[in-house]
Amino acid sequence: MADDTSLGSAEDRLIARYFKPLATHPAALGFNDDAAAIKPPPGCDLVLKTDGVIVGVHVFPDDPPAAIAQKALRMNLSDLAAKGASPLGFLLSIALPKDMPESWVAQFAEGLSADAERFGCPLLGGDTDRTPGPIAVNIFAFGTVPHGRMVLRGGAKAGDRIVVTGSIGDAALGLALRRDPSLRARWRLDQQGHDHLAGRYLLPQPRNAIAEVLREHASGAMDISDGLAGDFAKLCRASGVAGEIEVARVPLSDGARSAVAAEPALIETVLTGGDDYEILATMPPVKVEPFRQAAAAVGVAVTEIGAIAAGEGACLLDQNGNALGFSRPSYSHF
Amino acid sequence: MADDTSLGSAEDRLIARYFKPLATHPAALGFNDDAAAIKPPPGCDLVLKTDGVIVGVHVFPDDPPAAIAQKALRMNLSDLAAKGASPLGFLLSIALPKDMPESWVAQFAEGLSADAERFGCPLLGGDTDRTPGPIAVNIFAFGTVPHGRMVLRGGAKAGDRIVVTGSIGDAALGLALRRDPSLRARWRLDQQGHDHLAGRYLLPQPRNAIAEVLREHASGAMDISDGLAGDFAKLCRASGVAGEIEVARVPLSDGARSAVAAEPALIETVLTGGDDYEILATMPPVKVEPFRQAAAAVGVAVTEIGAIAAGEGACLLDQNGNALGFSRPSYSHF
Repeated sequence: MADDTSLGSAEDRLIARYFKPLATHPAALGFNDDAAAIKPPPGCDLVLKTDGVIVGVHVFPDDPPAAIAQKALRMNLSDLAAKGASPLGFLLSIALPKDMPESWVAQFAEGLSADAERFGCPLLGGDTDRTPGPIAVNIFAFGTVPHGRMVLRGGAKAGDRIVVTGSIGDAALGLALRRDPSLRARWRLDQQGHDHLAGRYLLPQPRNAIAEVLREHASGAMDISDGLAGDFAKLCRASGVAGEIEVARVPLSDGARSAVAAEPALIETVLTGGDDYEILATMPPVKVEPFRQAAAAVGVAVTEIGAIAAGEGACLLDQNGNALGFSRPSYSHF
Repeated sequence: MADDTSLGSAEDRLIARYFKPLATHPAALGFNDDAAAIKPPPGCDLVLKTDGVIVGVHVFPDDPPAAIAQKALRMNLSDLAAKGASPLGFLLSIALPKDMPESWVAQFAEGLSADAERFGCPLLGGDTDRTPGPIAVNIFAFGTVPHGRMVLRGGAKAGDRIVVTGSIGDAALGLALRRDPSLRARWRLDQQGHDHLAGRYLLPQPRNAIAEVLREHASGAMDISDGLAGDFAKLCRASGVAGEIEVARVPLSDGARSAVAAEPALIETVLTGGDDYEILATMPPVKVEPFRQAAAAVGVAVTEIGAIAAGEGACLLDQNGNALGFSRPSYSHF
């Protein structure tokens, strides 16, 4: 990003007014140069991730601009967390239609600024463009791990246990509620249950607090963004192992539990819906309890949900030990 | 990017078929993980840049897909070059409309692959999305410089000379020709002159070959992407200096010279048009000739075009020493 008020292009003015105040890290060079420059900590690998949000595809056009900014950033932070990486910073690329109210941009920048601070992940540069299409936000986030210590998707070993953070399915149910508010009554949700599910869809809670703990305990990990069932299958395949998850052990929030009790078929939505932004990890049995305790110490709940074995295939088992089959195992916006 | 053929989403299939073959660098992890991991060379700063192309805004919808890929990458490589940085790799974020022919994606990936090889800048990861809008390509490129050695936009000093690589204005004239082919006759362009200007618009030639040489000689530098006049003003402002460029010394290609001879007012297009992707640099007088020679040794022409002085303001002087004024000093797609 380049600040250039006196030339006075609309792009320059937007950047100067709303994004330049975010250029507080020395590596951002005050957005006065063509690129950012940062010295990575010695002995570290860089962990690099990009993920984008297109308004109308991944988020609703009337979502609060601050929440859109934060969701875009947090999607990427969640990947860094699942890889055991500490955030170093991010770049922002944003494409805006011609008639964007400045208040939208102001609120977007405010949300981004708050999260940059909250997660210790400074905005170091970026690019703004005009688009005839919908608002598009791309985040390029980078973090660090000690050399060779990124937690791989392909690291699960036979004999490992499978654990998951937080609760599963909330965001998928929150999305359904957003699309059809009448579901609230059908699912017998109280205000708190409704707000929890809606909030989990609107704003992910990435588990960056446990990145280091994860690095010390996990053999393999990935963040759950496209549904537990599909992402679990990916982890097993990348690791060349078989895995079984006991569905009854999958952690559900009170709201999700209420919805599934009212409509049992929703378990498929819970297990295959997107936007969980929890971490799926594997580790030797002896490490599960220390991991759970270390995660709890930083406020993240961890639940053991299954086991890894030699072979191939990823199964979700019901209470009778039968494998569940889903019509659409993985969520895709594509 | 995650490869996942067996789950079979359209996104997964596209990635597996067209982008996975580009995952040849170990840091890309075969696109089988959520993020890339790379060890930066010790003692280096990371130089980080993102710039995007929206089809229909920055490039024409019927431009060859390979050229769109390469322009998107080269815009970013040009910034790395101007900062004196060696490319380390890039991530790609691409948003595609629903009805994209696979042949478009195939040619896009082929072009990208060729340039990744050509510039030693491997694709390490990315993200694909479906969009209701136009095709959008975002590149996040990162390179390295020895610690503290990034060439800054704000480094120009009073007494420095101003130099520029290659030739100026070709792409802006190429764009005009693309919009109105009848200009070819009016500008008295032969086939070669026409093809040169058209080619310079279609496909930038970033000056990565001189990144190291630039680092050793330049006090300040930036790439010229929004027109020489405006970018020169930015450099002077960032450096807190005054500068004068003699327009008669600005290097023009044969085609540009022919066009300007036929229509002298085109000098404004030449000096303020975008997409040059040349490097504007400043350095002490004693360094100009060694720099010119070192750049020539790797095939890049360098021309001295002016001087930096104490004070403020950036002037372009005509042959009589009068400052030129432009209605629109800088190009903006915004």
